[in-house]
Amino acid sequence: MEKITGDIASPKGFHADGIHCGLKKRKKDIGWIYSDVPAAIAGVFTTNLVQAAPVTYTKSVVAKGQAQAIVVNSGNANACTGAQGVKDTATMAQLAGAALAINPDLVAVASTGVIGKILPMETVATGISELGAGVGRDFQQAILTTDTCEKSVVYQEIIAGKTVTLAGCGKGSGMIHPNMATMLGFVTTDAAIEQSLLQQILRELTETTFNQITVDGDTSTNDMVLILANGQAGNPVIKANTFEYQQFKKVLEKVLTFLAKAIAKDGEGATKLIEVITTGAKDDLAARMISKTVVGSPLVKTAIFGKDPNWGRILCAIGYSGVELEVTTLKISIGEHCVFDQGTPVLFDKEAMGSYLEQPELVIQVKLADGTGKGRAWGCDLTYDYVKINALYHT
Amino acid sequence: MEKITGDIASPKGFHADGIHCGLKKRKKDIGWIYSDVPAAIAGVFTTNLVQAAPVTYTKSVVAKGQAQAIVVNSGNANACTGAQGVKDTATMAQLAGAALAINPDLVAVASTGVIGKILPMETVATGISELGAGVGRDFQQAILTTDTCEKSVVYQEIIAGKTVTLAGCGKGSGMIHPNMATMLGFVTTDAAIEQSLLQQILRELTETTFNQITVDGDTSTNDMVLILANGQAGNPVIKANTFEYQQFKKVLEKVLTFLAKAIAKDGEGATKLIEVITTGAKDDLAARMISKTVVGSPLVKTAIFGKDPNWGRILCAIGYSGVELEVTTLKISIGEHCVFDQGTPVLFDKEAMGSYLEQPELVIQVKLADGTGKGRAWGCDLTYDYVKINALYHT
Repeated sequence: MEKITGDIASPKGFHADGIHCGLKKRKKDIGWIYSDVPAAIAGVFTTNLVQAAPVTYTKSVVAKGQAQAIVVNSGNANACTGAQGVKDTATMAQLAGAALAINPDLVAVASTGVIGKILPMETVATGISELGAGVGRDFQQAILTTDTCEKSVVYQEIIAGKTVTLAGCGKGSGMIHPNMATMLGFVTTDAAIEQSLLQQILRELTETTFNQITVDGDTSTNDMVLILANGQAGNPVIKANTFEYQQFKKVLEKVLTFLAKAIAKDGEGATKLIEVITTGAKDDLAARMISKTVVGSPLVKTAIFGKDPNWGRILCAIGYSGVELEVTTLKISIGEHCVFDQGTPVLFDKEAMGSYLEQPELVIQVKLADGTGKGRAWGCDLTYDYVKINALYHT
Repeated sequence: MEKITGDIASPKGFHADGIHCGLKKRKKDIGWIYSDVPAAIAGVFTTNLVQAAPVTYTKSVVAKGQAQAIVVNSGNANACTGAQGVKDTATMAQLAGAALAINPDLVAVASTGVIGKILPMETVATGISELGAGVGRDFQQAILTTDTCEKSVVYQEIIAGKTVTLAGCGKGSGMIHPNMATMLGFVTTDAAIEQSLLQQILRELTETTFNQITVDGDTSTNDMVLILANGQAGNPVIKANTFEYQQFKKVLEKVLTFLAKAIAKDGEGATKLIEVITTGAKDDLAARMISKTVVGSPLVKTAIFGKDPNWGRILCAIGYSGVELEVTTLKISIGEHCVFDQGTPVLFDKEAMGSYLEQPELVIQVKLADGTGKGRAWGCDLTYDYVKINALYHT
């Protein structure tokens, strides 16, 4: 497996573009990814009961198992827009299908931005008409909202003698929490793989990657992760429980983990990426719950912003994670520095801890003696800028 | 029922005091409440799995049903302090019992402040030795941490021909969330009431008052609400399902609601109290869950700080509250201004809304058509000062 330079259009047979059409003031706000041939599609979606029109629409595309393009706009979420919103999403698919001369039933749609505003469809239509083969990075920019940077990664692996490429890109960066928060993730690959297997792998890996990041605990109305696999690498179709399946899954896990961490790190106002690793829990789910509760605690997040090794708040969060655990045998470390062990505070080197807390990426380790469960979660610190961004970002 | 001027020592036969002993730099940090005679005691406690020594200790006092005094320190939570912490709590009860010449088994203990530091017991012992009959307001001040103001209220009601007084005081103000967060609440009353009934009423009313406030989603290790009823009003003992029971419960509800709202309003860094009222939910629990999810959403909280009528974030929070509901018939109002109805945004008077959002206490109403359930929750806005307070308040 090798990480290479590239973008979302790097896998064979994929193209992408992104431009500014006018949904946002200046920045790119509409884009698409498409494949030369129909691809297997898999997707996971927000669990919010209030779902934006593109979510319900694209769910039905994924249910049919095949797609050839994804059209995405930022600046307007097309959420809580009633019957008009449903119609507008279908129109976006129609327009993109017509422009690409493909069946519009093969077009998935995603939107992100402010909630509750009707899409200005003339602007959107003009935008779609101006999209072309472009470059992947333009797409990667067109899907951003309050993000401060592009998030993308490309890996290659030799599978059954063929070079298979997987590329991913995503956007955050507020409303990031359990189960697909305001977050879009797109993965393209030229691997050939059974659609049902692709869906199964994506769902499984989402549990340990995207669903383990949190910025502010808000689960959004819009979000989704989609993967297109067009088979252009020429490998024999990957089937379950084979060596090739293991290879593919490992690379996809790398891509999704990279994107999840990149989104957490670029959380609104964040200055630091925080990773919490829990081991020795009664099972993996318990470990993930503990990790996510700690990384989501506003008091832990503000302490990290203040460069304060406040293990009391970490312990407190562990205690309300909802997991049954034995406190008297738990151990907490910040970086390599143990701060709490066997029910008692541990003296640590304050100077060394001080230097550690200056780092941009921090690791908190929770070690239990309750079993073999392990799980990670990622988040960021809570800063003045989080408040500023969200107090000023009006509908 | 009448609200009167007074303090936690207003009910007959109660005394209280508070002084500075040195756990905090300058402010009062130790105090007690005691009764001339043993009183019925009831209590509710944090659900955090990590419980401070005073929590486990005072639970056992409440289990016996009787107490005559409560000794409380601030500045140090005596949490995560192992066997030494357990011993220190027992010593606090012993010292207070000896000083008051009462059975130490009748002394409840509460602590609040930083986690993980061993109590300096000489300082505490000196403090207890200096406590006297004092005044209620000194106690009310001695229990505060990052609070910006005292929180207390006194009500009187004629029950079975006797004047019965109920007084309450409390402290917040960070780590306030479900199920008794870093929050202490104390109620004294001279009513005569069966202990088991008192416990039942307190538990029931806690669900709709203290458990419906949230400042930051963190549930603390320390918190408790205690009520002492010493019977000195001379009323016949209140029994279940009587008129007097209804009277008493109504007054206690007033006291607890007042304290809950006061704590939410004084949330760390808060500039506004937010009340969310949900009606028409499938049941009361669903309505409470919706109200609490909305009032706890960081995005709603920052929007309110920014004076932004961002109903999209309100709707989004309703959607991830975990309650099954019908979105197409729900209605959202901010103050008297309807902003969303029947699945569609509603145009509102921006100027009038702007003025409303300047108020220090705001009401968000969520009306469903799913049943007759109703429930309220209280919280506050999320501000720069929340971040500042919690980034700088080191262990």
